[in-house]
Amino acid sequence: MNGPFIAVDWGTTNRRTYRIENGRATHIERDGRGVLAMHRDDFAREAAALRARWDDLPLLCVGMVGSRRGWREVPYVPTPASLANLALGTVWVEREAVAITPGVSHVAPERCDVMRGEEVQFFGAVAAGLAPAGCLLCQPGTHSKWARVEAARIRDFSTAMTGEIYSLLRRHSLLAEMLDGEAAVGSAFQDGVREGCKQTVLSSLFGARAAQLLNARPAGDGASFVSGLLIASDVQSQIRGVNDDVYVIGDAPLGLLYAAAIETLGGRPHLIDSAAAFVAGAGKIWEVLA
Amino acid sequence: MNGPFIAVDWGTTNRRTYRIENGRATHIERDGRGVLAMHRDDFAREAAALRARWDDLPLLCVGMVGSRRGWREVPYVPTPASLANLALGTVWVEREAVAITPGVSHVAPERCDVMRGEEVQFFGAVAAGLAPAGCLLCQPGTHSKWARVEAARIRDFSTAMTGEIYSLLRRHSLLAEMLDGEAAVGSAFQDGVREGCKQTVLSSLFGARAAQLLNARPAGDGASFVSGLLIASDVQSQIRGVNDDVYVIGDAPLGLLYAAAIETLGGRPHLIDSAAAFVAGAGKIWEVLA
Repeated sequence: MNGPFIAVDWGTTNRRTYRIENGRATHIERDGRGVLAMHRDDFAREAAALRARWDDLPLLCVGMVGSRRGWREVPYVPTPASLANLALGTVWVEREAVAITPGVSHVAPERCDVMRGEEVQFFGAVAAGLAPAGCLLCQPGTHSKWARVEAARIRDFSTAMTGEIYSLLRRHSLLAEMLDGEAAVGSAFQDGVREGCKQTVLSSLFGARAAQLLNARPAGDGASFVSGLLIASDVQSQIRGVNDDVYVIGDAPLGLLYAAAIETLGGRPHLIDSAAAFVAGAGKIWEVLA
Repeated sequence: MNGPFIAVDWGTTNRRTYRIENGRATHIERDGRGVLAMHRDDFAREAAALRARWDDLPLLCVGMVGSRRGWREVPYVPTPASLANLALGTVWVEREAVAITPGVSHVAPERCDVMRGEEVQFFGAVAAGLAPAGCLLCQPGTHSKWARVEAARIRDFSTAMTGEIYSLLRRHSLLAEMLDGEAAVGSAFQDGVREGCKQTVLSSLFGARAAQLLNARPAGDGASFVSGLLIASDVQSQIRGVNDDVYVIGDAPLGLLYAAAIETLGGRPHLIDSAAAFVAGAGKIWEVLA
Protein backbone atom coordinates (compact mmCIF):
# COMPACT_ATOMS: atom_id res chain seq x y z
CA MET A 1 0.00 0.00 0.00
CA ASN A 2 1.27 3.49 -0.84
CA GLY A 3 1.28 6.49 1.42
CA PRO A 4 -1.68 8.83 1.93
CA PHE A 5 -3.06 10.98 -0.90
CA ILE A 6 -5.93 13.38 -1.60
CA ALA A 7 -8.72 12.42 -4.01
CA VAL A 8 -11.14 15.06 -5.28
CA ASP A 9 -14.49 14.17 -6.81
CA TRP A 10 -14.70 17.43 -8.76
CA GLY A 11 -18.11 17.59 -10.38
CA THR A 12 -20.12 20.18 -12.25
CA THR A 13 -21.59 21.87 -9.18
CA ASN A 14 -20.13 20.06 -6.18
CA ARG A 15 -16.68 19.11 -4.99
CA ARG A 16 -15.85 16.42 -2.44
CA THR A 17 -12.31 16.11 -1.10
CA TYR A 18 -11.08 12.96 0.63
CA ARG A 19 -7.82 12.33 2.46
CA ILE A 20 -7.21 8.62 1.87
CA GLU A 21 -4.76 6.49 3.80
CA ASN A 22 -4.48 2.70 3.80
CA GLY A 23 -7.66 2.44 1.73
CA ARG A 24 -9.77 4.50 4.15
CA ALA A 25 -10.95 8.10 4.18
CA THR A 26 -9.45 9.83 7.20
CA HIS A 27 -11.08 13.18 6.34
CA ILE A 28 -13.90 14.26 3.97
CA GLU A 29 -14.93 17.76 2.96
CA ARG A 30 -17.73 18.88 0.69
CA ASP A 31 -18.25 22.29 -0.91
CA GLY A 32 -19.92 23.98 -3.87
CA ARG A 33 -16.68 24.79 -5.72
CA GLY A 34 -17.57 22.65 -8.73
CA VAL A 35 -16.37 23.19 -12.29
CA LEU A 36 -19.06 25.77 -13.09
CA ALA A 37 -17.83 27.98 -10.21
CA MET A 38 -14.28 28.06 -11.65
CA HIS A 39 -12.49 30.10 -14.25
CA ARG A 40 -9.91 28.17 -16.23
CA ASP A 41 -6.93 29.42 -14.22
CA ASP A 42 -8.65 28.83 -10.86
CA PHE A 43 -8.02 25.09 -11.06
CA ALA A 44 -4.24 25.21 -10.54
CA ARG A 45 -4.66 27.66 -7.66
CA GLU A 46 -7.39 25.55 -6.04
CA ALA A 47 -5.29 22.40 -6.36
CA ALA A 48 -2.25 24.11 -4.82
CA ALA A 49 -4.39 25.44 -1.98
CA LEU A 50 -5.81 21.97 -1.24
CA ARG A 51 -2.36 20.43 -1.19
CA ALA A 52 -0.91 23.22 0.97
CA ARG A 53 -3.67 22.69 3.49
CA TRP A 54 -3.35 18.88 3.51
CA ASP A 55 0.38 18.27 4.18
CA ASP A 56 1.36 18.69 0.53
CA LEU A 57 0.01 15.23 -0.31
CA PRO A 58 -0.35 14.26 -3.98
CA LEU A 59 -3.75 14.91 -5.55
CA LEU A 60 -5.94 12.69 -7.75
CA CYS A 61 -8.70 14.63 -9.50
CA VAL A 62 -11.81 12.82 -10.79
CA GLY A 63 -14.89 13.95 -12.70
CA MET A 64 -15.87 16.96 -14.78
CA VAL A 65 -12.54 18.58 -13.90
CA GLY A 66 -11.22 16.50 -16.83
CA SER A 67 -13.85 17.76 -19.30
CA ARG A 68 -13.71 20.47 -21.95
CA ARG A 69 -15.09 22.95 -19.41
CA GLY A 70 -12.71 21.77 -16.69
CA TRP A 71 -9.02 22.14 -15.94
CA ARG A 72 -7.64 19.97 -18.72
CA GLU A 73 -9.54 17.79 -21.18
CA VAL A 74 -8.60 14.15 -20.62
CA PRO A 75 -9.75 11.85 -23.46
CA TYR A 76 -12.47 9.32 -22.63
CA VAL A 77 -11.60 5.64 -22.23
CA PRO A 78 -13.99 3.65 -24.46
CA THR A 79 -16.14 0.72 -23.32
CA PRO A 80 -15.44 -2.04 -22.44
CA ALA A 81 -13.40 -0.18 -19.80
CA SER A 82 -11.48 -1.59 -16.86
CA LEU A 83 -10.02 0.12 -13.84
CA ALA A 84 -6.56 -0.51 -15.37
CA ASN A 85 -7.69 1.38 -18.52
CA LEU A 86 -8.69 4.32 -16.32
CA ALA A 87 -5.30 4.35 -14.63
CA LEU A 88 -3.56 4.14 -18.01
CA GLY A 89 -5.56 7.08 -19.33
CA THR A 90 -4.88 9.25 -16.32
CA VAL A 91 -2.96 12.43 -17.13
CA TRP A 92 -0.35 13.97 -14.85
CA VAL A 93 -0.74 17.72 -14.65
CA GLU A 94 2.29 17.81 -12.40
CA ARG A 95 4.47 14.67 -12.34
CA GLU A 96 3.71 12.47 -9.31
CA ALA A 97 1.89 15.34 -7.63
CA VAL A 98 -1.37 16.14 -9.47
CA ALA A 99 -3.28 13.84 -11.82
CA ILE A 100 -6.67 13.85 -13.58
CA THR A 101 -8.48 10.63 -14.45
CA PRO A 102 -10.36 10.14 -17.74
CA GLY A 103 -14.10 9.53 -18.12
CA VAL A 104 -15.65 6.66 -20.06
CA SER A 105 -17.42 6.83 -23.42
CA HIS A 106 -19.78 4.38 -25.04
CA VAL A 107 -20.09 4.61 -28.82
CA ALA A 108 -22.41 2.15 -30.53
CA PRO A 109 -24.14 2.53 -33.91
CA GLU A 110 -27.45 3.14 -32.17
CA ARG A 111 -26.40 5.10 -29.11
CA CYS A 112 -23.65 7.24 -27.56
CA ASP A 113 -23.02 8.04 -23.93
CA VAL A 114 -20.37 9.59 -21.69
CA MET A 115 -19.55 9.81 -17.99
CA ARG A 116 -16.95 11.51 -15.86
CA GLY A 117 -16.69 10.60 -12.21
CA GLU A 118 -19.30 7.87 -11.79
CA GLU A 119 -16.94 5.23 -13.26
CA VAL A 120 -14.66 5.54 -10.21
CA GLN A 121 -17.56 4.64 -7.93
CA PHE A 122 -18.71 1.80 -10.19
CA PHE A 123 -15.22 0.26 -10.23
CA GLY A 124 -14.79 1.00 -6.54
CA ALA A 125 -18.02 -0.80 -5.61
CA VAL A 126 -16.83 -3.89 -7.48
CA ALA A 127 -13.24 -3.67 -6.23
CA ALA A 128 -14.37 -3.40 -2.62
CA GLY A 129 -16.70 -6.39 -3.02
CA LEU A 130 -19.79 -4.24 -2.45
CA ALA A 131 -21.12 -5.42 -5.84
CA PRO A 132 -20.24 -8.56 -7.83
CA ALA A 133 -17.91 -8.41 -10.86
CA GLY A 134 -20.89 -8.93 -13.16
CA CYS A 135 -23.96 -6.84 -12.34
CA LEU A 136 -26.21 -3.86 -13.06
CA LEU A 137 -25.19 -0.73 -11.16
CA CYS A 138 -27.12 2.50 -10.83
CA GLN A 139 -26.04 5.89 -9.61
CA PRO A 140 -29.08 8.18 -9.26
CA GLY A 141 -28.66 11.93 -9.57
CA THR A 142 -29.11 14.94 -11.85
CA HIS A 143 -28.03 12.60 -14.63
CA SER A 144 -28.59 9.08 -13.39
CA LYS A 145 -26.11 6.53 -14.68
CA TRP A 146 -26.76 2.85 -15.26
CA ALA A 147 -23.75 0.61 -15.92
CA ARG A 148 -23.60 -3.03 -16.94
CA VAL A 149 -20.43 -4.54 -15.57
CA GLU A 150 -19.00 -7.86 -16.79
CA ALA A 151 -15.78 -9.37 -15.44
CA ALA A 152 -15.18 -6.07 -13.61
CA ARG A 153 -15.33 -4.08 -16.87
CA ILE A 154 -17.96 -1.49 -17.80
CA ARG A 155 -19.38 -3.07 -20.94
CA ASP A 156 -22.23 -0.63 -21.56
CA PHE A 157 -23.88 2.27 -19.77
CA SER A 158 -26.71 4.71 -20.18
CA THR A 159 -27.55 8.10 -18.72
CA ALA A 160 -31.03 9.42 -17.98
CA MET A 161 -31.81 13.09 -17.33
CA THR A 162 -34.20 12.11 -14.55
CA GLY A 163 -32.93 14.49 -11.88
CA GLU A 164 -32.47 17.41 -14.25
CA ILE A 165 -36.01 17.06 -15.63
CA TYR A 166 -37.39 16.86 -12.08
CA SER A 167 -35.52 20.01 -11.17
CA LEU A 168 -36.70 21.85 -14.32
CA LEU A 169 -40.29 20.87 -13.53
CA ARG A 170 -39.94 22.13 -9.96
CA ARG A 171 -38.41 25.44 -10.88
CA HIS A 172 -39.92 26.44 -14.19
CA SER A 173 -42.94 24.38 -15.25
CA LEU A 174 -46.70 24.43 -14.95
CA LEU A 175 -46.21 21.81 -12.21
CA ALA A 176 -43.88 23.99 -10.09
CA GLU A 177 -46.61 24.92 -7.63
CA MET A 178 -47.64 21.33 -6.93
CA LEU A 179 -44.01 20.16 -6.53
CA ASP A 180 -43.42 22.16 -3.40
CA GLY A 181 -42.05 19.94 -0.64
CA GLU A 182 -39.73 16.95 -0.67
CA ALA A 183 -40.34 13.57 -2.26
CA ALA A 184 -40.47 10.65 0.17
CA VAL A 185 -41.17 6.94 -0.01
CA GLY A 186 -44.86 6.34 0.72
CA SER A 187 -48.18 5.73 -0.96
CA ALA A 188 -48.05 8.82 -3.22
CA PHE A 189 -44.58 7.84 -4.42
CA GLN A 190 -45.72 4.25 -5.08
CA ASP A 191 -48.79 5.52 -6.98
CA GLY A 192 -46.40 7.54 -9.11
CA VAL A 193 -44.20 4.49 -9.72
CA ARG A 194 -47.16 2.39 -10.89
CA GLU A 195 -48.48 5.20 -13.09
CA GLY A 196 -45.02 5.92 -14.52
CA CYS A 197 -44.84 2.42 -16.03
CA LYS A 198 -48.05 2.70 -17.96
CA GLN A 199 -47.51 5.64 -20.26
CA THR A 200 -44.87 7.92 -21.58
CA VAL A 201 -43.57 10.43 -19.06
CA LEU A 202 -44.81 13.26 -21.27
CA SER A 203 -48.44 12.23 -20.72
CA SER A 204 -48.26 11.01 -17.15
CA LEU A 205 -46.81 14.37 -16.02
CA PHE A 206 -49.82 16.32 -17.23
CA GLY A 207 -52.10 13.69 -15.73
CA ALA A 208 -50.59 14.47 -12.33
CA ARG A 209 -51.64 18.09 -12.70
CA ALA A 210 -55.12 17.18 -13.96
CA ALA A 211 -55.65 14.82 -11.02
CA GLN A 212 -55.03 17.68 -8.62
CA LEU A 213 -57.31 20.07 -10.51
CA LEU A 214 -60.07 17.46 -10.35
CA ASN A 215 -59.36 16.68 -6.68
CA ALA A 216 -58.57 13.09 -7.62
CA ARG A 217 -55.25 13.36 -5.76
CA PRO A 218 -54.63 15.21 -2.50
CA ALA A 219 -52.67 18.46 -2.69
CA GLY A 220 -49.26 18.14 -1.02
CA ASP A 221 -48.63 14.74 -2.64
CA GLY A 222 -47.23 16.23 -5.82
CA ALA A 223 -43.49 16.00 -5.22
CA SER A 224 -43.62 12.34 -4.19
CA PHE A 225 -46.02 11.37 -6.97
CA VAL A 226 -44.08 13.07 -9.77
CA SER A 227 -40.78 11.82 -8.39
CA GLY A 228 -42.28 8.32 -8.54
CA LEU A 229 -43.37 8.85 -12.16
CA LEU A 230 -39.94 9.92 -13.31
CA ILE A 231 -37.93 7.36 -11.34
CA ALA A 232 -40.22 4.54 -12.52
CA SER A 233 -39.73 5.55 -16.12
CA ASP A 234 -35.96 5.55 -15.55
CA VAL A 235 -35.88 2.22 -13.67
CA GLN A 236 -38.27 0.42 -16.00
CA SER A 237 -36.13 1.12 -19.03
CA GLN A 238 -33.19 -0.63 -17.33
CA ILE A 239 -34.58 -3.59 -15.41
CA ARG A 240 -34.97 -6.56 -17.73
CA GLY A 241 -36.45 -9.39 -15.74
CA VAL A 242 -38.09 -10.11 -12.43
CA ASN A 243 -35.66 -10.40 -9.53
CA ASP A 244 -32.98 -8.42 -11.34
CA ASP A 245 -30.39 -7.39 -8.79
CA VAL A 246 -29.62 -3.68 -8.97
CA TYR A 247 -26.72 -2.18 -7.03
CA VAL A 248 -27.63 1.42 -6.21
CA ILE A 249 -24.75 3.72 -5.33
CA GLY A 250 -26.51 6.58 -3.62
CA ASP A 251 -27.31 8.17 -0.33
CA ALA A 252 -30.60 9.11 1.29
CA PRO A 253 -33.05 10.38 0.19
CA LEU A 254 -32.49 9.64 -3.52
CA GLY A 255 -30.97 6.19 -3.06
CA LEU A 256 -33.98 5.17 -0.97
CA LEU A 257 -36.43 6.42 -3.60
CA TYR A 258 -34.65 4.40 -6.30
CA ALA A 259 -34.51 1.32 -4.08
CA ALA A 260 -38.26 1.57 -3.41
CA ALA A 261 -39.07 1.98 -7.12
CA ILE A 262 -36.81 -0.95 -8.10
CA GLU A 263 -38.54 -3.16 -5.55
CA THR A 264 -42.04 -2.14 -6.70
CA LEU A 265 -41.05 -2.91 -10.29
CA GLY A 266 -39.93 -6.42 -9.38
CA GLY A 267 -36.17 -5.88 -8.99
CA ARG A 268 -33.96 -6.46 -5.96
CA PRO A 269 -32.18 -3.28 -4.83
CA HIS A 270 -28.88 -3.30 -2.92
CA LEU A 271 -27.81 0.07 -1.51
CA ILE A 272 -24.13 1.00 -1.57
CA ASP A 273 -22.66 3.98 0.24
CA SER A 274 -21.31 6.38 -2.39
CA ALA A 275 -18.35 7.62 -0.33
CA ALA A 276 -17.21 4.04 0.33
CA ALA A 277 -17.41 3.25 -3.40
CA PHE A 278 -15.50 6.41 -4.32
CA VAL A 279 -12.73 5.84 -1.78
CA ALA A 280 -12.27 2.24 -2.96
CA GLY A 281 -12.17 3.27 -6.64
CA ALA A 282 -9.79 6.18 -6.15
CA GLY A 283 -7.56 4.00 -3.94
CA LYS A 284 -7.30 1.27 -6.60
CA ILE A 285 -6.45 3.75 -9.35
CA TRP A 286 -3.81 5.34 -7.15
CA GLU A 287 -2.30 1.94 -6.41
CA VAL A 288 -1.86 1.30 -10.14
CA LEU A 289 -0.50 4.81 -10.78
CA ALA A 290 1.98 5.02 -7.95
CA MET B 1 -78.13 31.02 -39.38
CA ASN B 2 -77.80 33.73 -36.71
CA GLY B 3 -76.20 37.09 -37.08
CA PRO B 4 -72.49 37.80 -36.71
CA PHE B 5 -70.69 37.37 -33.36
CA ILE B 6 -67.18 37.50 -31.90
CA ALA B 7 -65.43 34.35 -30.70
CA VAL B 8 -62.30 34.61 -28.58
CA ASP B 9 -59.90 31.72 -28.15
CA TRP B 10 -58.54 33.04 -24.85
CA GLY B 11 -55.65 30.84 -23.82
CA THR B 12 -52.96 30.94 -21.15
CA THR B 13 -50.52 33.12 -23.07
CA ASN B 14 -52.23 33.96 -26.37
CA ARG B 15 -55.56 35.34 -27.44
CA ARG B 16 -57.15 35.03 -30.87
CA THR B 17 -60.23 37.01 -31.73
CA TYR B 18 -62.49 36.11 -34.66
CA ARG B 19 -65.43 38.00 -36.11
CA ILE B 20 -67.66 35.22 -37.43
CA GLU B 21 -70.51 35.70 -39.87
CA ASN B 22 -72.41 33.01 -41.77
CA GLY B 23 -69.97 30.38 -40.56
CA ARG B 24 -66.88 32.22 -41.81
CA ALA B 25 -64.25 34.38 -40.14
CA THR B 26 -64.44 37.86 -41.63
CA HIS B 27 -61.65 39.19 -39.41
CA ILE B 28 -58.98 37.54 -37.19
CA GLU B 29 -56.66 39.17 -34.67
CA ARG B 30 -53.98 37.63 -32.51
CA ASP B 31 -52.24 39.10 -29.47
CA GLY B 32 -50.40 38.10 -26.30
CA ARG B 33 -53.17 39.17 -23.91
CA GLY B 34 -53.72 35.68 -22.55
CA VAL B 35 -55.01 34.78 -19.11
CA LEU B 36 -51.60 35.10 -17.45
CA ALA B 37 -51.36 38.74 -18.61
CA MET B 38 -54.66 39.62 -16.90
CA HIS B 39 -55.72 40.57 -13.42
CA ARG B 40 -59.11 39.26 -12.39
CA ASP B 41 -60.94 42.52 -13.09
CA ASP B 42 -59.24 43.05 -16.46
CA PHE B 43 -61.46 40.46 -18.13
CA ALA B 44 -64.71 42.44 -18.04
CA ARG B 45 -62.90 45.55 -19.27
CA GLU B 46 -61.17 43.63 -22.07
CA ALA B 47 -64.45 42.03 -23.15
CA ALA B 48 -66.21 45.39 -23.20
CA ALA B 49 -63.36 46.91 -25.21
CA LEU B 50 -63.50 44.11 -27.78
CA ARG B 51 -67.26 44.50 -28.20
CA ALA B 52 -67.04 48.30 -28.40
CA ARG B 53 -64.49 48.01 -31.16
CA TRP B 54 -66.41 45.33 -33.09
CA ASP B 55 -69.91 46.83 -33.51
CA ASP B 56 -71.08 45.72 -30.06
CA LEU B 57 -71.51 42.15 -31.32
CA PRO B 58 -72.09 39.38 -28.74
CA LEU B 59 -68.98 37.58 -27.49
CA LEU B 60 -68.28 33.86 -27.05
CA CYS B 61 -65.19 33.20 -24.90
CA VAL B 62 -63.39 29.85 -25.13
CA GLY B 63 -60.40 28.36 -23.30
CA MET B 64 -58.48 29.11 -20.12
CA VAL B 65 -60.64 32.21 -19.63
CA GLY B 66 -63.09 29.73 -18.04
CA SER B 67 -60.52 28.26 -15.62
CA ARG B 68 -59.84 28.98 -11.96
CA ARG B 69 -57.19 31.51 -13.02
CA GLY B 70 -59.46 33.07 -15.63
CA TRP B 71 -62.49 35.34 -15.63
CA ARG B 72 -65.01 32.90 -14.21
CA GLU B 73 -64.61 29.20 -13.47
CA VAL B 74 -66.96 27.21 -15.69
CA PRO B 75 -67.28 23.54 -14.60
CA TYR B 76 -65.85 20.92 -16.94
CA VAL B 77 -68.17 18.77 -19.05
CA PRO B 78 -67.19 15.10 -18.49
CA THR B 79 -66.40 12.59 -21.24
CA PRO B 80 -68.10 11.29 -23.31
CA ALA B 81 -68.78 14.90 -24.33
CA SER B 82 -70.73 16.20 -27.31
CA LEU B 83 -70.90 19.64 -28.82
CA ALA B 84 -74.44 19.91 -27.40
CA ASN B 85 -73.03 19.21 -23.90
CA LEU B 86 -70.57 22.08 -24.40
CA ALA B 87 -73.35 24.44 -25.39
CA LEU B 88 -75.44 23.31 -22.40
CA GLY B 89 -72.53 23.94 -20.02
CA THR B 90 -71.81 27.40 -21.40
CA VAL B 91 -72.26 30.17 -18.82
CA TRP B 92 -73.63 33.62 -19.65
CA VAL B 93 -71.63 36.34 -17.95
CA GLU B 94 -74.02 38.86 -19.46
CA ARG B 95 -77.29 37.48 -20.84
CA GLU B 96 -77.18 37.07 -24.64
CA ALA B 97 -74.10 39.28 -24.81
CA VAL B 98 -71.08 37.52 -23.25
CA ALA B 99 -70.69 33.78 -22.67
CA ILE B 100 -67.88 31.42 -21.59
CA THR B 101 -67.77 27.80 -22.73
CA PRO B 102 -66.74 24.93 -20.41
CA GLY B 103 -63.73 22.67 -20.87
CA VAL B 104 -63.84 18.87 -20.90
CA SER B 105 -62.61 16.51 -18.18
CA HIS B 106 -61.79 12.83 -18.35
CA VAL B 107 -61.90 10.95 -15.07
CA ALA B 108 -61.13 7.24 -15.15
CA PRO B 109 -59.85 5.06 -12.30
CA GLU B 110 -56.42 4.93 -13.88
CA ARG B 111 -56.10 8.41 -15.33
CA CYS B 112 -57.43 11.98 -15.21
CA ASP B 113 -57.16 14.71 -17.80
CA VAL B 114 -58.55 18.15 -18.59
CA MET B 115 -58.72 20.55 -21.51
CA ARG B 116 -60.03 24.04 -22.11
CA GLY B 117 -60.18 25.33 -25.66
CA GLU B 118 -58.98 22.40 -27.74
CA GLU B 119 -62.41 20.73 -27.55
CA VAL B 120 -63.91 23.51 -29.69
CA GLN B 121 -61.42 22.75 -32.46
CA PHE B 122 -61.93 18.98 -32.13
CA PHE B 123 -65.71 19.34 -32.45
CA GLY B 124 -65.29 21.97 -35.16
CA ALA B 125 -63.09 19.69 -37.28
CA VAL B 126 -65.72 16.96 -37.13
CA ALA B 127 -68.68 19.33 -37.62
CA ALA B 128 -67.07 20.89 -40.70
CA GLY B 129 -66.35 17.45 -42.19
CA LEU B 130 -62.58 17.98 -41.96
CA ALA B 131 -62.35 14.81 -39.85
CA PRO B 132 -64.77 11.84 -39.64
CA ALA B 133 -67.17 11.43 -36.70
CA GLY B 134 -65.04 8.57 -35.38
CA CYS B 135 -61.28 9.19 -35.40
CA LEU B 136 -58.08 10.04 -33.53
CA LEU B 137 -57.38 13.79 -33.43
CA CYS B 138 -54.21 15.50 -32.29
CA GLN B 139 -53.55 19.12 -31.45
CA PRO B 140 -49.81 19.67 -30.96
CA GLY B 141 -48.60 22.48 -28.71
CA THR B 142 -47.18 23.34 -25.30
CA HIS B 143 -49.51 20.66 -24.00
CA SER B 144 -50.38 18.44 -26.93
CA LYS B 145 -53.87 16.97 -26.82
CA TRP B 146 -54.95 13.66 -28.29
CA ALA B 147 -58.69 12.98 -28.51
CA ARG B 148 -60.54 9.83 -29.48
CA VAL B 149 -63.86 10.78 -31.04
CA GLU B 150 -66.73 8.32 -31.53
CA ALA B 151 -70.08 9.30 -33.03
CA ALA B 152 -68.93 12.93 -32.82
CA ARG B 153 -68.36 12.68 -29.04
CA ILE B 154 -65.02 12.98 -27.27
CA ARG B 155 -64.84 9.58 -25.58
CA ASP B 156 -61.32 9.83 -24.17
CA PHE B 157 -58.36 12.18 -24.40
CA SER B 158 -54.84 12.54 -23.15
CA THR B 159 -52.41 15.45 -22.76
CA ALA B 160 -48.64 15.27 -23.16
CA MET B 161 -46.29 18.00 -21.93
CA THR B 162 -44.21 17.67 -25.10
CA GLY B 163 -43.98 21.34 -25.99
CA GLU B 164 -43.42 22.51 -22.43
CA ILE B 165 -40.58 20.01 -21.87
CA TYR B 166 -39.00 21.08 -25.18
CA SER B 167 -39.18 24.70 -24.11
CA LEU B 168 -37.73 23.95 -20.63
CA LEU B 169 -34.86 22.08 -22.27
CA ARG B 170 -34.16 24.99 -24.61
CA ARG B 171 -34.22 27.63 -21.94
CA HIS B 172 -32.85 26.04 -18.80
CA SER B 173 -31.18 22.67 -19.33
CA LEU B 174 -27.77 21.23 -20.05
CA LEU B 175 -28.99 20.89 -23.64
CA ALA B 176 -29.86 24.60 -24.04
CA GLU B 177 -26.71 25.38 -26.00
CA MET B 178 -27.27 22.62 -28.57
CA LEU B 179 -30.95 23.52 -29.04
CA ASP B 180 -30.24 26.85 -30.61
CA GLY B 181 -32.05 27.20 -33.93
CA GLU B 182 -35.42 25.97 -35.14
CA ALA B 183 -36.53 22.37 -35.57
CA ALA B 184 -37.37 21.38 -39.15
CA VAL B 185 -38.37 18.23 -40.99
CA GLY B 186 -35.25 16.57 -42.39
CA SER B 187 -32.76 13.82 -41.67
CA ALA B 188 -31.83 15.02 -38.15
CA PHE B 189 -35.51 15.18 -37.21
CA GLN B 190 -36.12 11.68 -38.61
CA ASP B 191 -33.08 10.32 -36.74
CA GLY B 192 -34.60 11.76 -33.59
CA VAL B 193 -37.97 10.15 -34.36
CA ARG B 194 -36.38 6.72 -34.81
CA GLU B 195 -34.27 7.10 -31.66
CA GLY B 196 -37.23 8.42 -29.64
CA CYS B 197 -39.11 5.14 -30.11
CA LYS B 198 -36.37 2.98 -28.69
CA GLN B 199 -35.88 4.24 -25.17
CA THR B 200 -37.45 6.41 -22.56
CA VAL B 201 -37.15 10.12 -23.29
CA LEU B 202 -35.11 10.54 -20.10
CA SER B 203 -32.24 8.47 -21.57
CA SER B 204 -32.46 9.47 -25.21
CA LEU B 205 -32.17 13.16 -24.28
CA PHE B 206 -28.80 12.70 -22.64
CA GLY B 207 -27.70 10.53 -25.55
CA ALA B 208 -28.27 13.51 -27.85
CA ARG B 209 -25.82 15.54 -25.82
CA ALA B 210 -23.27 12.72 -25.66
CA ALA B 211 -23.45 12.23 -29.43
CA GLN B 212 -22.46 15.87 -29.94
CA LEU B 213 -19.62 15.68 -27.40
CA LEU B 214 -18.27 12.63 -29.23
CA ASN B 215 -18.79 14.26 -32.64
CA ALA B 216 -21.16 11.44 -33.60
CA ARG B 217 -23.77 14.03 -34.60
CA PRO B 218 -23.11 17.33 -36.35
CA ALA B 219 -23.48 20.50 -34.28
CA GLY B 220 -26.46 22.57 -35.44
CA ASP B 221 -28.68 19.48 -35.70
CA GLY B 222 -29.68 19.57 -32.07
CA ALA B 223 -33.05 21.32 -32.23
CA SER B 224 -34.37 19.06 -34.98
CA PHE B 225 -33.01 15.88 -33.41
CA VAL B 226 -34.36 16.57 -29.92
CA SER B 227 -37.68 17.76 -31.32
CA GLY B 228 -37.86 14.43 -33.17
CA LEU B 229 -37.14 12.51 -29.94
CA LEU B 230 -39.89 14.20 -27.99
CA ILE B 231 -42.52 14.18 -30.72
CA ALA B 232 -41.86 10.48 -31.45
CA SER B 233 -42.32 9.60 -27.81
CA ASP B 234 -45.60 11.53 -27.83
CA VAL B 235 -46.89 10.05 -31.12
CA GLN B 236 -45.82 6.49 -30.35
CA SER B 237 -47.83 6.38 -27.15
CA GLN B 238 -51.00 7.23 -29.12
CA ILE B 239 -50.78 5.41 -32.44
CA ARG B 240 -52.02 1.85 -32.02
CA GLY B 241 -51.69 0.14 -35.38
CA VAL B 242 -50.10 0.56 -38.75
CA ASN B 243 -52.02 2.90 -41.06
CA ASP B 244 -53.78 4.60 -38.16
CA ASP B 245 -55.31 7.79 -39.49
CA VAL B 246 -54.43 10.79 -37.34
CA TYR B 247 -56.13 14.17 -37.86
CA VAL B 248 -53.64 16.85 -36.83
CA ILE B 249 -55.09 20.26 -36.03
CA GLY B 250 -52.06 22.49 -36.25
CA ASP B 251 -50.24 25.02 -38.33
CA ALA B 252 -46.69 25.09 -39.64
CA PRO B 253 -44.10 24.39 -38.37
CA LEU B 254 -45.39 22.21 -35.51
CA GLY B 255 -48.18 20.54 -37.48
CA LEU B 256 -45.68 19.55 -40.17
CA LEU B 257 -43.28 18.07 -37.60
CA TYR B 258 -46.08 15.97 -36.10
CA ALA B 259 -47.26 14.88 -39.55
CA ALA B 260 -43.72 13.78 -40.47
CA ALA B 261 -43.30 11.83 -37.21
CA ILE B 262 -46.71 10.15 -37.59
CA GLU B 263 -45.80 9.06 -41.09
CA THR B 264 -42.39 7.70 -40.04
CA LEU B 265 -44.05 5.73 -37.25
CA GLY B 266 -46.48 4.08 -39.68
CA GLY B 267 -49.53 6.31 -39.27
CA ARG B 268 -51.37 8.39 -41.86
CA PRO B 269 -51.44 12.09 -40.98
CA HIS B 270 -54.14 14.49 -42.19
CA LEU B 271 -53.46 18.17 -41.54
CA ILE B 272 -56.35 20.43 -40.55
CA ASP B 273 -56.14 24.21 -40.37
CA SER B 274 -56.63 25.23 -36.74
CA ALA B 275 -58.45 28.48 -37.48
CA ALA B 276 -60.95 26.67 -39.74
CA ALA B 277 -61.58 24.09 -36.99
CA PHE B 278 -62.04 26.80 -34.36
CA VAL B 279 -64.43 28.88 -36.47
CA ALA B 280 -66.55 25.81 -37.26
CA GLY B 281 -66.67 24.74 -33.60
CA ALA B 282 -67.47 28.18 -32.21
CA GLY B 283 -70.10 28.66 -34.93
CA LYS B 284 -71.87 25.40 -34.04
CA ILE B 285 -71.92 26.19 -30.32
CA TRP B 286 -73.29 29.65 -31.03
CA GLU B 287 -76.01 28.15 -33.22
CA VAL B 288 -77.18 25.96 -30.32
CA LEU B 289 -76.95 28.84 -27.81
CA ALA B 290 -78.67 31.51 -29.82
